[in-house]
Amino acid sequence: MDEVSLRRYAELVIRVGLNLQPGQRLLITGPLANGGVALDAAPLVRAVAAQAYDAGAPLVEVLWGDEPLVTLRYRHAPPESFGQASAWLPGALLEHVRTGHATLSIHANDPDLLRSAPPERVSAIQSATAHAVKPFRDRISKNATNWCVVAAPAPSWAARVFPGLSQDEQVARLSAAIARLCRLDAADPIAAWGSHLDGLSARTALLNAHRYQALLYRGPGTDLRVGLAAGHIWTGGRSTSANGIPFAANLPTEEVFTMPARDRVDGHVRASKPLSYGGTLIEDFRFTFEAGRIVDVTAARGEEVLRQLVATDDGAARLGELALVPHSSPISQTGHLFFSTLFDENAASHLAIGSAYAFTLEGGEAMTAEEFERAGGNRSATHVDFMIGSGELDIDGVRADGTTEPVMRAGEWAD
Amino acid sequence: MDEVSLRRYAELVIRVGLNLQPGQRLLITGPLANGGVALDAAPLVRAVAAQAYDAGAPLVEVLWGDEPLVTLRYRHAPPESFGQASAWLPGALLEHVRTGHATLSIHANDPDLLRSAPPERVSAIQSATAHAVKPFRDRISKNATNWCVVAAPAPSWAARVFPGLSQDEQVARLSAAIARLCRLDAADPIAAWGSHLDGLSARTALLNAHRYQALLYRGPGTDLRVGLAAGHIWTGGRSTSANGIPFAANLPTEEVFTMPARDRVDGHVRASKPLSYGGTLIEDFRFTFEAGRIVDVTAARGEEVLRQLVATDDGAARLGELALVPHSSPISQTGHLFFSTLFDENAASHLAIGSAYAFTLEGGEAMTAEEFERAGGNRSATHVDFMIGSGELDIDGVRADGTTEPVMRAGEWAD
Repeated sequence: MDEVSLRRYAELVIRVGLNLQPGQRLLITGPLANGGVALDAAPLVRAVAAQAYDAGAPLVEVLWGDEPLVTLRYRHAPPESFGQASAWLPGALLEHVRTGHATLSIHANDPDLLRSAPPERVSAIQSATAHAVKPFRDRISKNATNWCVVAAPAPSWAARVFPGLSQDEQVARLSAAIARLCRLDAADPIAAWGSHLDGLSARTALLNAHRYQALLYRGPGTDLRVGLAAGHIWTGGRSTSANGIPFAANLPTEEVFTMPARDRVDGHVRASKPLSYGGTLIEDFRFTFEAGRIVDVTAARGEEVLRQLVATDDGAARLGELALVPHSSPISQTGHLFFSTLFDENAASHLAIGSAYAFTLEGGEAMTAEEFERAGGNRSATHVDFMIGSGELDIDGVRADGTTEPVMRAGEWAD
Repeated sequence: MDEVSLRRYAELVIRVGLNLQPGQRLLITGPLANGGVALDAAPLVRAVAAQAYDAGAPLVEVLWGDEPLVTLRYRHAPPESFGQASAWLPGALLEHVRTGHATLSIHANDPDLLRSAPPERVSAIQSATAHAVKPFRDRISKNATNWCVVAAPAPSWAARVFPGLSQDEQVARLSAAIARLCRLDAADPIAAWGSHLDGLSARTALLNAHRYQALLYRGPGTDLRVGLAAGHIWTGGRSTSANGIPFAANLPTEEVFTMPARDRVDGHVRASKPLSYGGTLIEDFRFTFEAGRIVDVTAARGEEVLRQLVATDDGAARLGELALVPHSSPISQTGHLFFSTLFDENAASHLAIGSAYAFTLEGGEAMTAEEFERAGGNRSATHVDFMIGSGELDIDGVRADGTTEPVMRAGEWAD
């Protein structure tokens, strides 16, 4: 990414994504099971740090994670050690957000890093990390403070998205895609994001007015009814943290999303894109739900890792999020499969298994864990999105009286 | 550094330096005021991690510190922020060593990184970090667990040691120097280190038998009497951690060292080599001592940073270590100035201001802080070595009866 784009990107992250306030420290991380942000993200990390300091941050800290070290562990560590997680990382993360500081996760990872690693080892590390950092993730999922997830072009990632080109060309193409999808080529990217986030707010207002009790999904391999919790809140684009800071948690973001009822999901659903989970690609997979619970899992590739993921805990076999994205979204229009949830989830309607966001339920942030669950909110140590949207997906909303109306047709908003 | 040398180096670090035990986790760090080990050290970090796992480590973690982020902070952070240190790093380090795991510090840093940074900012960050991580350093200085310091060739460091060559040539020359000084070119480097460490043990046994009450230093610009604490212990090469693991804390190491009496140092001393401290080079400097305390400081370059260092706390103006190294040491024979304490201190006899090592005093590890100080042990948040040895330095030992005998003549052992 060229210097100008990097600076614009970093400014967008600090001013729109995090809306970092003077006096807030910034902790930059990446995938936590990898130990942090990939070394390849260094140019963006540095650009963001400069902008953070300019915005009044007293300290910017980075938890780096070197991908070759992750693969080394799989090859060299003792067989019985894969259930061990960092002793200090959970406390470090919690200490940072507990005191109201901001955190940024930068993804610049090889989506298929662990293709040769034994699935049970991948699952053991993912599960141990998820449990260890749950107190941190719980705070983030309650928007306790301002947080954001963005991506940086990395050679290993670019090679997956643009195979058959030279490495320089691959990175250049991925950089250009990120820049376009983050609207860095707009005359004023920050103003462009203001308008776009306003549009997402208008869409959530419409959906919230409907008070649907369920959504019905129909498409190739999919026939699914997802109940919506009473008191569900559609949200998208902007959030406000518990300490009162408006922020945008994902850049780019094209989705509006809300909370499914954890025990009112029935039918079957087929993923429309591969999922990169913990460095393993899971392809062409299907779930069958009964009364909210996944009762059957199949996948053409990565089925064992997917089964282990669903078995992480009770909540990992239930839905925690449903999100709507028009098939005509800019990310979808690129025609690329990014092998990165941050991008692919914004190219297609999707669901997530695992924990629900407290802010997608009225009064959710003030509820105890038990109250949240009784209200339909799912709880889990994990949260993993998977894409189901396409140009062939129809979605209906079920009104309070049981009648239905079109929400999406052939992947586009029906209204 | 080529693959073979890297693997030999890593094996030496794990087997001789740390003597890592099965089940011990390994935390790899670097200069803590920089946030950790420089990204340029990645090849050695990865080689060490593979050896650590092969030796039975269940988890290898790395705290990386990106040098450009350090310089960015000086340029961009708010003026009042430089006294702030990481909120989570001190606890993370302490948690790791408290539970008996091993720690490795890898230095691969530009010795003059902060040449353009305001000295008061450098001092503020160094001081804040030193105070924050003192509980960790205290445990290390008591050998609570096995620890080691080594170096990795970095382009910025190599450029200082070998100016006027191409970058590739600079790194190749520095790599070759490290390999030679770490005896990686021996037929069996681990056996070679066994013999060398035995030699250092024999020298400490001789010195311990003398029970000198003081050493007298005479050389160009130097006329200094350093009292030795009653119960001082000469040590060198191998140590044994409180949890019973023999290890070698520095690779390479050529020194034998002990504890000066904190209030019995008088005279003046001139550094024989520049000191790289916190990314700033301090050159041609002198201290004057009265009753153990530094009462005058001059330096041709970096005087302000040096004055601030000495003012860190009361103990920073007193000696905590004295070390003897023959002028003919392999490191001295290279004729290079490495601008790295790990190497330069093993090329020349040296002193350290700041905290004394508890294991250099009989019963020191079991003493309270007050008992240790009464016994002559210095306490401080800092510990900084500076070189005073040369081919022109003579050292006499003062016996219990006040008579003297030669210890070193023209920089070499007198016996």
